[in-house]
Amino acid sequence: MVPPVEGGDAALLPEFPRGPLDAYRARASFSWKELALFTEGEDMLRFKKTIFSALEKDPLFARSPGADLSLEKYRELNFLRCKRIFEYDFLSVEDMFKSPLKVPALIQCLGMYDSSLAVKYLLHSLVFGSAVYSSGSERHLTYIPKIFSMEAYLCHTRTEMFANYNQPFSLVQEFIIHSPDFEAAKFWVGNMGKTATHAVVFAKLHVPGDQCHGLHPFIVQIRDPKTLLPMPGVMVGDMGKKLGQNGLDNGFAMFHKVRVPRQSLLNRMGDVTPEGTYVSPFKDVRQRFGVSLGGLSSGRVSILSLAVVNLKLAMAIALRFSATRRQFGPTEEEEIAVLEYPMQQCRLLPYLAAAYALDHFSKSLFLDLVEFQRGLASGDRSARQAELGREIHALASASKPLASWTAQQGIQECREACGGHGYLAMNRLGVLRDDNDPNCTYEGDNNVLLQQTSNYLLGLLAPRVQDGACFRSPLKSVDFLDAYPSILDQKFEVSSVADCLDSAVALAAYKWLVCYLLRETYQKLNQEKRSGSSDFEARNNCQVSHGRPLALAFLELTVVQRFHEHVHQPCVPPSLRAVLGRLSALYALWSLSRHAALLYRGGYFSGEQAGEVLENAVLALCSQVKRCSLPLVRLIAPPDFVLDSPIGRATGELYKNLWGAVLQESKVLERASWWPEFSVNKPVIGSLKSKL
Amino acid sequence: MVPPVEGGDAALLPEFPRGPLDAYRARASFSWKELALFTEGEDMLRFKKTIFSALEKDPLFARSPGADLSLEKYRELNFLRCKRIFEYDFLSVEDMFKSPLKVPALIQCLGMYDSSLAVKYLLHSLVFGSAVYSSGSERHLTYIPKIFSMEAYLCHTRTEMFANYNQPFSLVQEFIIHSPDFEAAKFWVGNMGKTATHAVVFAKLHVPGDQCHGLHPFIVQIRDPKTLLPMPGVMVGDMGKKLGQNGLDNGFAMFHKVRVPRQSLLNRMGDVTPEGTYVSPFKDVRQRFGVSLGGLSSGRVSILSLAVVNLKLAMAIALRFSATRRQFGPTEEEEIAVLEYPMQQCRLLPYLAAAYALDHFSKSLFLDLVEFQRGLASGDRSARQAELGREIHALASASKPLASWTAQQGIQECREACGGHGYLAMNRLGVLRDDNDPNCTYEGDNNVLLQQTSNYLLGLLAPRVQDGACFRSPLKSVDFLDAYPSILDQKFEVSSVADCLDSAVALAAYKWLVCYLLRETYQKLNQEKRSGSSDFEARNNCQVSHGRPLALAFLELTVVQRFHEHVHQPCVPPSLRAVLGRLSALYALWSLSRHAALLYRGGYFSGEQAGEVLENAVLALCSQVKRCSLPLVRLIAPPDFVLDSPIGRATGELYKNLWGAVLQESKVLERASWWPEFSVNKPVIGSLKSKL
Repeated sequence: MVPPVEGGDAALLPEFPRGPLDAYRARASFSWKELALFTEGEDMLRFKKTIFSALEKDPLFARSPGADLSLEKYRELNFLRCKRIFEYDFLSVEDMFKSPLKVPALIQCLGMYDSSLAVKYLLHSLVFGSAVYSSGSERHLTYIPKIFSMEAYLCHTRTEMFANYNQPFSLVQEFIIHSPDFEAAKFWVGNMGKTATHAVVFAKLHVPGDQCHGLHPFIVQIRDPKTLLPMPGVMVGDMGKKLGQNGLDNGFAMFHKVRVPRQSLLNRMGDVTPEGTYVSPFKDVRQRFGVSLGGLSSGRVSILSLAVVNLKLAMAIALRFSATRRQFGPTEEEEIAVLEYPMQQCRLLPYLAAAYALDHFSKSLFLDLVEFQRGLASGDRSARQAELGREIHALASASKPLASWTAQQGIQECREACGGHGYLAMNRLGVLRDDNDPNCTYEGDNNVLLQQTSNYLLGLLAPRVQDGACFRSPLKSVDFLDAYPSILDQKFEVSSVADCLDSAVALAAYKWLVCYLLRETYQKLNQEKRSGSSDFEARNNCQVSHGRPLALAFLELTVVQRFHEHVHQPCVPPSLRAVLGRLSALYALWSLSRHAALLYRGGYFSGEQAGEVLENAVLALCSQVKRCSLPLVRLIAPPDFVLDSPIGRATGELYKNLWGAVLQESKVLERASWWPEFSVNKPVIGSLKSKL
Repeated sequence: MVPPVEGGDAALLPEFPRGPLDAYRARASFSWKELALFTEGEDMLRFKKTIFSALEKDPLFARSPGADLSLEKYRELNFLRCKRIFEYDFLSVEDMFKSPLKVPALIQCLGMYDSSLAVKYLLHSLVFGSAVYSSGSERHLTYIPKIFSMEAYLCHTRTEMFANYNQPFSLVQEFIIHSPDFEAAKFWVGNMGKTATHAVVFAKLHVPGDQCHGLHPFIVQIRDPKTLLPMPGVMVGDMGKKLGQNGLDNGFAMFHKVRVPRQSLLNRMGDVTPEGTYVSPFKDVRQRFGVSLGGLSSGRVSILSLAVVNLKLAMAIALRFSATRRQFGPTEEEEIAVLEYPMQQCRLLPYLAAAYALDHFSKSLFLDLVEFQRGLASGDRSARQAELGREIHALASASKPLASWTAQQGIQECREACGGHGYLAMNRLGVLRDDNDPNCTYEGDNNVLLQQTSNYLLGLLAPRVQDGACFRSPLKSVDFLDAYPSILDQKFEVSSVADCLDSAVALAAYKWLVCYLLRETYQKLNQEKRSGSSDFEARNNCQVSHGRPLALAFLELTVVQRFHEHVHQPCVPPSLRAVLGRLSALYALWSLSRHAALLYRGGYFSGEQAGEVLENAVLALCSQVKRCSLPLVRLIAPPDFVLDSPIGRATGELYKNLWGAVLQESKVLERASWWPEFSVNKPVIGSLKSKL
């Protein structure tokens, strides 16, 4: 049991402001405070509150509603805010090790304020920090304090450049970094556009008298920190305006024979001796690969968590709007809140459940990653560590697509569900959509990444089929596959909606679905190969109809499984079991329902009833979750200042808030500055016709 | 047979610029010129070329890549451009009557240049013009020339205001327009924010000693055209920044007892005599309703056409990019164009087919609307005219959702398929997405509109079930339903992919699907009512799972049917039959495949093979259409100046175009203006910790 909140915690979990939303809030069957303490814990709630309060009190973070910020100004502001975050030092290195979940929590809090800030901070400190930490060695640790004091401002790039030994290497002990042509220039590097002084550059490593050793990371200075002018041989510039995240300066760089000292090589995976000989501590290529895959995961896990933030914010805005906006009704006189319409419920509430399920998953996957990185730091070269790297890679590669797409679709649904008001820039749904969008692309295009996950699963099936090997992985995400022949014999047996309102129903169906897709993909792949396709062609031809749905279904199953276990733990307070169970069931069944055609096709579903039961269960759960939706939003919504959306304010005074915000914008009631254009020089119809 | 293009037409249909796309273009099995002449006709091609050339030559329309336009500046520019369009007078009133399709063609050309321009022009001239034309009478025609000379600049609003007779009416002959409170203010009216001088205001009409006669349209002056200052009693302002279409000024207005003369009432549907008596030429309320429904359709049909434009532009950009962007390949050395990946094909090519099918549908529905409006103008009060109004209303109400969502999803897919380059603002995919987005919302939220269509179909089934009435409609879109009992007995019989590559297969399946959904919806609705739900509740409870898919499936069927008939006409040149047939089959089957779960659930599909055949047919058609995709793009893409996307240029010189555009932006290689912030005042870690 979670202890009741003491009197002193009224400030930690303040009551709702009174207002039109009271009626909705009163309907909930549980105490949102209890849920907050169960989900987050007091220490975490306090940590988030500290961050939000600091931002709210600091004029540098003041919101400027309706301001038309120029690109240059926005980038400056974001840079200054990033710097200020270091001054606050919300999370010391000791705290980070003690409570690792505070790392994504900090990023999420910054992301709730502004994605650009979160990403800029993340790229500079954590991605770079973790690159140095996981790929470098003792000699590179000197960079860590420089990051935090911003003596070195960093970015991180993976590219087609070459790092050649500088002949005679043993004398000068330098590499030469060189981009052969424009097409090899690296676009899109975050922080590179205007601010980075150093870059982690991945380049193909060539050493004397030896073949290429593939991509290795180097630290290369690209700008003079005193002047921010580029270093000799470096052409570095800004990509210009993007669809979103414009506080972040993405850049491009070309290197013309830039010399860097031998020690610039981040040498954990492989090093070059002063004499120019390549050495690697990993004898087993497969192990080395597994370990380096794990390193790729940290960016993807961070993106997963940022996508969840965007979804949470959008849900908070759209659900508060829907509970206060009234339209039509059973009679001419009585208008009802749009949230009362089953259509509005089914558009929004599955995404609320998704926000909860994916949030839980993102935390649990982050903890898995921490375990992996600790192994890395302690020099663990066991097979288990390598397997853990592969499994996390497979999970992270599919979780970024799932979360970024869910957020993208959810935000779009929120935008539309708020009608015209969702299209008003000040209400923030557009910013959320635009800032979330690159989550689908960076750190690997979603569709390309899914192939990593399907390849992982196919790679496990082959030894099973050929040698009877077991399915076993460190995190047990694939262990169920061991029973695949018997799972494939199962059928959907639920015949009433009442029996379907549980995530266990979806879990069973998902297990069947993953086994089915895995078998189908494997067969299709072999059939392609038998008919003469190369491995490359065969995989490409299987991906659309087989590999992609396999990877997504596997990841959805893992998310559902982890959330199901979480909400069914014995430590869940009895009063919270119902609401958490419904969230888990809604996410699971809604998500499953999008695969209904495959369930029928493979024979797991048959007859009209199966599809109907599933559909009706989702509808019923939407209606049940609706009754708790406002308190559920209370947990995921940051304070109004951070949420920054007039239609999403906690008071629910929709028209007051909206009119207040509209009228506060500059020049709203003024006539256009160009009004004389209107009254003079009336167009003479067809006066330019002769010019056609 | 279409005659070959004469020598003089080289300018009308110029050859492609030579470049990396040549290889792709050479693979096509048909002449794109022949397709252009067949699809558009020479006169239309010439008309579009005239418009594009005029814009390209006129400095007012010069593109300003990378410019950070302020809201105020963008609105001024858009206003001036709109004015200039009148000066060009591309389409005289006579031409409009002779070739009605030039009306949507003009709007499409403007929309290809900039959505804000198309919408501003459309709202001012056509929507207002058609309101006056279809709702007003002789006495209102004086407004028409004022529109074109911009003496009156117009907007159009539907609202909760009241129009009360001014007692004693017979003396002053005035109405009083009044908004009771803030909540009754009308938000979002296009052109109202800064420019409108007159508004068509829908208000509830009250006349002396009589009850309310419902919404009627009035022309109300809201600003002084000389000064652009608001008229007494009118509070009018600008909504502020939106997610897109920021060249258009959306506004809000409140009226405080504003007096307007009796003649301001647009009196075709109903009038008030000088003595204050309400009179209507329509005796039958159902007929009057049918006619007024038809009037609602013109906005929706225009939006359909604008959504198609956005989809076309996005396809042009993404497909040219995909044909030139190379990534990975069968060997380390050989990189292949991303369009060669089945994944990329399946992401994009169904939307290319959709652009063609929906484009054809939008033209044909526009012609239906012209027929209806001609009836209206000639005073046709027949039952057929009213039925035509209802049918067009049902088609338009579902076609706006289908087209706007297809465009929204297609553009997002294009954005993602172009990776980071799709996220660069200059490549225009973001603008297209943002400008298309309101198409899902204005003139009725998509989900709400679909209920109009499902209600129309349910309204036809009831008399059939009860009295054995026939399904008959003026445009024959529902006539097939007459055979619904036998259609429902049909099954999917196609067992090979080769037999499935035809839109006829999809047509048969769609007919079954619509019959199935109609029956299910009807039964569900009756079941709801029997269990005690009110009509309002019953309809809401059926909409998500039944009414919505019914409306969409019915409209998809209509689109597929019309495009199928179009491409199978005897006049189609033999060399074009293959490519047009494939486009038709791809759109039809891809669209159908999203209903696969319902096809299984209702028993039309059974066994693994049905779903597999459908899926494999879509894949096969994608691969076939890929070979023709570049010439197909040539037809829908405007000139580079209008398309305005470096990655989408016709030359296909991807890196050259992109680098050129990036480097041309201002300050790209300059250090940030705020560089001293970087080197001075380094953050002192934790220096603000005491403030937390």
